Amino acid sequence: RTLARMGTELRCQCIATHSRFIPPKSIQDVKLTQSGPHCKNVEVIATLKDGREVCLEPTAPWVQLIIKAILARAQQNSDSPL
Amino acid sequence: RTLARMGTELRCQCIATHSRFIPPKSIQDVKLTQSGPHCKNVEVIATLKDGREVCLEPTAPWVQLIIKAILARAQQNSDSPL
Repeated sequence: RTLARMGTELRCQCIATHSRFIPPKSIQDVKLTQSGPHCKNVEVIATLKDGREVCLEPTAPWVQLIIKAILARAQQNSDSPL
Repeated sequence: RTLARMGTELRCQCIATHSRFIPPKSIQDVKLTQSGPHCKNVEVIATLKDGREVCLEPTAPWVQLIIKAILARAQQNSDSPL
């Protein structure tokens, strides 16, 4: 487990980050938490479709690509006719 | 309120999206949810520092910029010496 606790916490939630690639298809959602007084790190927590939650490394190129891919799909959805 | 319910739901969580700019400083975290069988839309839900949750429009340029800014800050943090 790389995740300490859930919810709006007063400290960092990620103890470590998952280093291996996770296919976008198995990701349900991705939460980006700003750094702040509670935690000096930006934290990225993915919820997988099987319910697991994993901390991702926000500076990893594949993590940034997954986030961009989700936003790009939103654009595609809005461009396509109903 | 633009948010229907919280958690891993079986339907869309956003009824409408907040259209006005929200300063990044007042955002605690941003959750991107992929489209899927539960909901045909990509959904972006921001938690503000005052605890409110608001649905954002994933195709809005300012929303995409805020997400990029959070990721860019992660990069800055990792580049800077301790």
